[in-house]
Amino acid sequence: MDFQEVIMRLDQFWAGKGCLIWQPYNVQVGAGTMNPATVLRVLGPEPWSVAYVEPSVRPDDGRYGENPNRWGQYYQYQVILKPDPGNPVELFLQSLEALGISTREHDIRLVEDNWEQPALGAWGLGWEIWMDGQEITQFTYFQQAGGYELNPVSVEITYGLERVVMVLQGVQDFSHIRWGNGVSYGEMLLQQEKEHCTYNFQTASVERLRQMYDLFEAEAKNALKAGLVIPGHDYVLKCSHAFNVLDARGAIGVTERAHYFARMRDLSREVSRLYLAQREAMGYPLLRRTTAGPRVVTAVDASRYAQGPASLLLEIGLEELPAAEVGAALGQLRESVPQSLQGLRLGFEDVQVLGTPRRLMVLVRGLAANQPDEERVVKGPPADFAFDKQGQTTKAALGFARAQGVDVTALQKRDYEGKCYVVAVRAERGRPAATVLAEALPQWIAGLKWAKSMRWNESGVAMARALRWIVALLGDQVLPFEFAGVASGRVTQGLRPLGSPAIELSSADAYLDAMRAASIVLDPEQRRARIAAQAKELATSVGGEIPHAPELLGEVANLVEWPTPLLGHFSEEYLALPQEVLIAVMKKHQRYFPVMKDGKLLARFVIVANGPFESLDKVRHGNEEVLRARYADAAFFFKADTEKGLEAYLVRLSTLMFQVKLGSVLDKVGRLEKLVPWLADRVGASATERRDALRVAHLCKADLATRMVVELTSLQGVMGHKYATLAGEPPAVAQGIWEHYLPRVAGDQLPQGMPGKLVGLADRLDSLVGLFAVGLQPTGSADPYGLRRAALGLVQILAESRISFSLHAALKAAAELLPVQASAEALTAAQDFVTQRLRGWLLDSGHRYDLVEAALAERADDPYQAVQTVRSLSAWVNRPEFSALLTAYARPSRIVREYAAEFTLHPDELSEPEEHELYTAVLAAQEQRVAVHDVDGLMAVLGPLAKPIDALFAKVFVMVEDQAVRENRLALLQRVAALARGIVDLSKVLGS
Amino acid sequence: MDFQEVIMRLDQFWAGKGCLIWQPYNVQVGAGTMNPATVLRVLGPEPWSVAYVEPSVRPDDGRYGENPNRWGQYYQYQVILKPDPGNPVELFLQSLEALGISTREHDIRLVEDNWEQPALGAWGLGWEIWMDGQEITQFTYFQQAGGYELNPVSVEITYGLERVVMVLQGVQDFSHIRWGNGVSYGEMLLQQEKEHCTYNFQTASVERLRQMYDLFEAEAKNALKAGLVIPGHDYVLKCSHAFNVLDARGAIGVTERAHYFARMRDLSREVSRLYLAQREAMGYPLLRRTTAGPRVVTAVDASRYAQGPASLLLEIGLEELPAAEVGAALGQLRESVPQSLQGLRLGFEDVQVLGTPRRLMVLVRGLAANQPDEERVVKGPPADFAFDKQGQTTKAALGFARAQGVDVTALQKRDYEGKCYVVAVRAERGRPAATVLAEALPQWIAGLKWAKSMRWNESGVAMARALRWIVALLGDQVLPFEFAGVASGRVTQGLRPLGSPAIELSSADAYLDAMRAASIVLDPEQRRARIAAQAKELATSVGGEIPHAPELLGEVANLVEWPTPLLGHFSEEYLALPQEVLIAVMKKHQRYFPVMKDGKLLARFVIVANGPFESLDKVRHGNEEVLRARYADAAFFFKADTEKGLEAYLVRLSTLMFQVKLGSVLDKVGRLEKLVPWLADRVGASATERRDALRVAHLCKADLATRMVVELTSLQGVMGHKYATLAGEPPAVAQGIWEHYLPRVAGDQLPQGMPGKLVGLADRLDSLVGLFAVGLQPTGSADPYGLRRAALGLVQILAESRISFSLHAALKAAAELLPVQASAEALTAAQDFVTQRLRGWLLDSGHRYDLVEAALAERADDPYQAVQTVRSLSAWVNRPEFSALLTAYARPSRIVREYAAEFTLHPDELSEPEEHELYTAVLAAQEQRVAVHDVDGLMAVLGPLAKPIDALFAKVFVMVEDQAVRENRLALLQRVAALARGIVDLSKVLGS
Repeated sequence: MDFQEVIMRLDQFWAGKGCLIWQPYNVQVGAGTMNPATVLRVLGPEPWSVAYVEPSVRPDDGRYGENPNRWGQYYQYQVILKPDPGNPVELFLQSLEALGISTREHDIRLVEDNWEQPALGAWGLGWEIWMDGQEITQFTYFQQAGGYELNPVSVEITYGLERVVMVLQGVQDFSHIRWGNGVSYGEMLLQQEKEHCTYNFQTASVERLRQMYDLFEAEAKNALKAGLVIPGHDYVLKCSHAFNVLDARGAIGVTERAHYFARMRDLSREVSRLYLAQREAMGYPLLRRTTAGPRVVTAVDASRYAQGPASLLLEIGLEELPAAEVGAALGQLRESVPQSLQGLRLGFEDVQVLGTPRRLMVLVRGLAANQPDEERVVKGPPADFAFDKQGQTTKAALGFARAQGVDVTALQKRDYEGKCYVVAVRAERGRPAATVLAEALPQWIAGLKWAKSMRWNESGVAMARALRWIVALLGDQVLPFEFAGVASGRVTQGLRPLGSPAIELSSADAYLDAMRAASIVLDPEQRRARIAAQAKELATSVGGEIPHAPELLGEVANLVEWPTPLLGHFSEEYLALPQEVLIAVMKKHQRYFPVMKDGKLLARFVIVANGPFESLDKVRHGNEEVLRARYADAAFFFKADTEKGLEAYLVRLSTLMFQVKLGSVLDKVGRLEKLVPWLADRVGASATERRDALRVAHLCKADLATRMVVELTSLQGVMGHKYATLAGEPPAVAQGIWEHYLPRVAGDQLPQGMPGKLVGLADRLDSLVGLFAVGLQPTGSADPYGLRRAALGLVQILAESRISFSLHAALKAAAELLPVQASAEALTAAQDFVTQRLRGWLLDSGHRYDLVEAALAERADDPYQAVQTVRSLSAWVNRPEFSALLTAYARPSRIVREYAAEFTLHPDELSEPEEHELYTAVLAAQEQRVAVHDVDGLMAVLGPLAKPIDALFAKVFVMVEDQAVRENRLALLQRVAALARGIVDLSKVLGS
Repeated sequence: MDFQEVIMRLDQFWAGKGCLIWQPYNVQVGAGTMNPATVLRVLGPEPWSVAYVEPSVRPDDGRYGENPNRWGQYYQYQVILKPDPGNPVELFLQSLEALGISTREHDIRLVEDNWEQPALGAWGLGWEIWMDGQEITQFTYFQQAGGYELNPVSVEITYGLERVVMVLQGVQDFSHIRWGNGVSYGEMLLQQEKEHCTYNFQTASVERLRQMYDLFEAEAKNALKAGLVIPGHDYVLKCSHAFNVLDARGAIGVTERAHYFARMRDLSREVSRLYLAQREAMGYPLLRRTTAGPRVVTAVDASRYAQGPASLLLEIGLEELPAAEVGAALGQLRESVPQSLQGLRLGFEDVQVLGTPRRLMVLVRGLAANQPDEERVVKGPPADFAFDKQGQTTKAALGFARAQGVDVTALQKRDYEGKCYVVAVRAERGRPAATVLAEALPQWIAGLKWAKSMRWNESGVAMARALRWIVALLGDQVLPFEFAGVASGRVTQGLRPLGSPAIELSSADAYLDAMRAASIVLDPEQRRARIAAQAKELATSVGGEIPHAPELLGEVANLVEWPTPLLGHFSEEYLALPQEVLIAVMKKHQRYFPVMKDGKLLARFVIVANGPFESLDKVRHGNEEVLRARYADAAFFFKADTEKGLEAYLVRLSTLMFQVKLGSVLDKVGRLEKLVPWLADRVGASATERRDALRVAHLCKADLATRMVVELTSLQGVMGHKYATLAGEPPAVAQGIWEHYLPRVAGDQLPQGMPGKLVGLADRLDSLVGLFAVGLQPTGSADPYGLRRAALGLVQILAESRISFSLHAALKAAAELLPVQASAEALTAAQDFVTQRLRGWLLDSGHRYDLVEAALAERADDPYQAVQTVRSLSAWVNRPEFSALLTAYARPSRIVREYAAEFTLHPDELSEPEEHELYTAVLAAQEQRVAVHDVDGLMAVLGPLAKPIDALFAKVFVMVEDQAVRENRLALLQRVAALARGIVDLSKVLGS
């Protein structure tokens, strides 16, 4: 089927589904969304269904036609359905069938992808739709556009036509697609694609494009001021295209980008505002369809349900949930359902909660048929108040009875603590479980909390994805209710690859068998185990293994209902690319498992398809093609990046904003280059280390501007290491570039070389003091700059690298390099923040709270020493002699803690022998203490004091009336207490 | 059928005909032609067939959606067929059938329309295709694009989709078209149309648009310099759109327009050049189809033809010729065919030449079956040279025989003027007519000269329109030959409305009957007569009449093969518009005949459809709708124009260039305002006339800037008159505005009022002297500024209005007002030019050449007097006494003409009595002559001189030897001759 025929068939298909068939826009747009037939018509209450082709121009995606499936211009097929017809995913799958693409042959997957277009003030939730691993369509429930919340919500389906046709024609490159009548896509468009790339990347005049942008913007405002929606919108589109070219040309810095976005967003909002006002003024001429009347839900007829315990099944049928939402929702149900049943006073044997991306299931076994009956007693006035002397009811009794809704004659008397009161007694009959549940089940669904939720129909209910069916069975009977426009029933849907066949359930107990029969693995753990086992088997078959990847495994397990792992292969030539790149591409973009052997990647990977397939060849082939295209892209980046050399990217860091008051990343690099020598002095680095560290500081951020890292941010540092090596930097420098990011997450490795350590420290010190200085310290859970991680990393490096220095001095040194003034409060706050992380880390490491406090009280400013102190102390507390020493030593400390003043010791006025003895011991200890810096040393110093201290307290009363005597004794005790100062505050140790 | 369904059907139709189905362009374009799929792909040798929709943006055509079928944006459906498939018109008609439009129900006509796009360096020949009077499609054979001649030629078919769909849906306004799925065209696009109009006409910032243009142009150059075709082309399109908006905004003056066009043309040429170079470098990848081998034409087998005289039929079957070409071609054939037959020595009885737009017919009756036999004798050397004394042949004879290709023994002897020579005699047998004609007939076709011709297929033959079939029959046999890729045969085609059925002809003689049977009126005169008679009948039926309109009648008669006049009606409300407007619209745009009654237009018109229709209702209805839309447009213009008032348009004349060195039309108006008082003085105008004339000078050109006149240039002056009246100008002023253009053509009426005369004169004087001053006098047949007409008008006004003044003085006065210096030579040349027109006009008026020369010799500087002189003289020459007087008077004149010097007369030295007598008579005549200014007076003065002159010559010999006597006599004769000076040079009168 030719490319042109595919378009004609889609036109016919969607016209048959009630869509108006529209035309591409005559202004360059980045997506069909920007055609007024979408971006404006989705606003407001009028229904709107449309389908059209749109050539989508994305200069930055251009690859000179060298990538098989990524071009700077490609053809979208855009469909808008407003309101949601109730089965848009099914309609989409039917359209694929109309093209001859069967879900039984191809692995069609709905992979979470939430769409946001800040320049249009628009967002929505939905999926990338994958066919054999290839993204062929974007499917979105529009929630907002032009800054306005949409009501009704529109469904947007955007096909990538080329990718669909490539599968249909079995070709492996856009260029080879047969367009029509013997002419290929490449013959039509390849030369143009190359030319556009050359223009956008190399030729376009930045100065003139900027001027165009400004003129377009001015004319947009001019048109909008005159109330002209479409002329205004056209100019917004022209702004957007000019911006895209500037961006591809590499002319847009980070702050500038934000500024451009804000300008475009303002314009877009004004377009939307005017459009809405216009439609309102026109009386919404397309608002013809009457909305369907409210659904009538049958009342519960309790007599139809079993009178004994039965099973309850609730299946919540949804369009494909994001993987993370599956687990979260199941967790919530596991907690809430038993609680709810208890609250409803319905007994049960057990609750089972399972689910897949398309269904959340609750199965309650042995559920009581009724609530138990209940007697409700309300205490009224004292009996002698309620009845007069003649035994007649008083006004008080009458009032109470009326308030309780009982006849006054029905009031009873009860004794409470020996006194008699009237009470109203109401016997409440337990309600049938069916009745109770029909009310409760909608609440269970409504009670689910979602990370991100969306509306989709007129009910206005918001969930992570659209609710499409509900099965609610108590025994063999349906529990009738309605939620979000869906009525409960007994029909569930089978696997998508099998066409989501309707499956009618005879009873709740029949469910699990029915699911098994339908090839649906309900249990996420079971899916995970299956994938792990089969993937391992596949890897073993080629002599490899699957590296541990629990997050990926968890995600993949929640992307499928019937996992089918299969082994794919890619061309060995790509193994020339850095392994980290290959793996990152696989995992991030494709959710494939890499196959390794002896730490080296094999040219293999494991895909997890969804469903049972008659043949896996098409699925495998499709996925292999996708990976090939991805790797071609990576190779393109790698080539482009290495042609220039790493240092060449430095200059572009000046357009990459670190923070607006703290300047660009290049500014930051400048500061690191100054801070590193200061740190090197502190750690006594060698000349070589110092030189390498300076070079690392210079180059460490350069890879952020490379195309590979722009595309795959997770490769920062990794690419820096590779590119530095290729550029001939010394191994220590390349290693330092990679290591300065370490540790990236909790439990990550730490830098080994001094250059990486020094730059890593400098980077973190700069970020901490800088961001605190400009008031951007983390608040609550918000930590956009990752300062918690930075502080923790700082502490870990210091601790594990045995680097000892004053945090205060270091922060101050960093602060002096900032372009802003850091206040003393900010410095203190930054230091406290680091100490807090140090405290947390020590506690997480299993140290006793009191020991941590004891160490921090004296050594927080030098994290390495603090850690050492805690560690030593932790060893000491287990020694038998420690307890006595602590007891003895802590007592003076505790006493003198009350006094801020330092008392003067007059040795000659010491009167008691115990005083003299202690004084002598203190003098000796003070002498030893000078050379002591750690806990072990301190303990050796303090050991001899235990006896004289104990002796003193046994004989001498410190707090005598005579002030002079008292203060002289306190002065002696202060001398004792001061011996530990700077090392540890033993008074904070428990038991002291 | 919905709008969207029409597009889908056209896609399917053209895909089925081998077209690639393409998409609209994503840059605003004025026409589908500008999509690279046309404008670039038509270049070079590669075959290319494509079809696509194109929204066409033409800001100037915007009417705020108020016109039923003219919007600033509409949808084209564009088809390109390259090379010509041989039947593109038929394919187009099939596509209409595929949409359900039958040529039997609708009057489908191909009306000449030659397309030129200077901004693209492109042109072609073809038609507007009309359906019931409505232009629905543009059909063009592209001859050139981007400045390059096209080979092969492309056929371009551009449907106006809305107009096609309006007929299909029976709706009368774009807005009411059903687009699809319950949404109308208006619901999609009306608001946008209004907004675009407001923006383009009122809101757009001229300054910013100009800046955008400059930036686009600079980027186009930038891209082209880098060899980037499509990026360059895109910017050319953006230039074009920016220009169109500026133009709609009224910001483009005439010279500026030319300048912009030149800039765009230069860019377009560079785009084309680069594209061609690129395709060549790529090796023309689409050049796959092998061209068909040469057609094999059967040789003539003379034995198959009648041996006696027979009829010859040549029918040249063409796609619809322009009306003017039909008459011209028939005229050529009437002349060339008999000449050719004579040259071929083929006897015949008569030649009949008839034709229609689709066929040119030559029917020769009684054509001889053979050329007569012929003997060819070549004279050789004298016999005594050829034979020696012994009677043997000499070398001379041998050489002669060899040269003539005869045996020496075959030489004969013949006597020539008494001398004997050898001769070579060759008997040449007459060739059969069939053989001769098979060679000659292609020459007849090739010999046709066309006003404008085009190529269409690989033969490279150029004709006015494509040749599609040839019938060539001699008796009942085909004369086989091939021309322009078409083989002759015996099959002709019937009427287009009947589907051009194939008609096989048994013999040449069967042709006329076959045509009659096929409802084809072959004779243009017959068609013309039929139309005239039937139109008159239709007009009479509503009490009206058809005004004389021979040109329109002639044109219409050559637009049809079977004329079917019918009566249409339009809404009486439009009669409120000026009648001239209504008539101009009818005739110019629609070729309708107006119906008048007592000089007033009725709300009726006569259409001439082509062919016999079962019902005329659809045709009539369609034509009525077209006229309604046209009148709606006129009403729109009229309203827009009158809202502003005439004087308001004056200022826009500053942007309307008269000539670059002579300034704008407003500058010209300024000059007229100064020249008019000068002229008023010369003619002794009254104060009122003077005042009115000044006002006329002020306003006379203002209507050129009104929308009505911009649209219908022929209404200049007419609208000025109307608008001035509506603006409250005095009737004399309004009349003057109209009259200053008179006479517009030969035989036109002349201005009646003095204001119109004065301004008319001033206007013409200014144009003449101005354009001569800047070197733009007419050359050869080129007269772009219409100076011949201006000069003739000048002369006519002066003559008929009896205005007498010195042309030289007037031109000088006009010259002094010019912004440039007019040289003396230029002034003289201008005056000579006027005199030449005066001479021509007098001769055309039937005056004797000699009388005209006699008058002009003395009075050319005052055309009125010159005319009067000729007229009087013409009367005098018929009087009996004139001959004697002339004879007498002319003789002295002729004699003294030889002498440049003026001799002194010494009366006292006159010796003979005849001298004295003449001298006395001359003195008396001189006295009378002072008061005489015209021929009549002159004759009265000269009358008495005849006798004395005759007497003198009878007795006295003037040219005596004695110098003194001779010169004294010549002096006397000079006095006589001088009497006529300043009035007429009688010596130039024949017979003098």
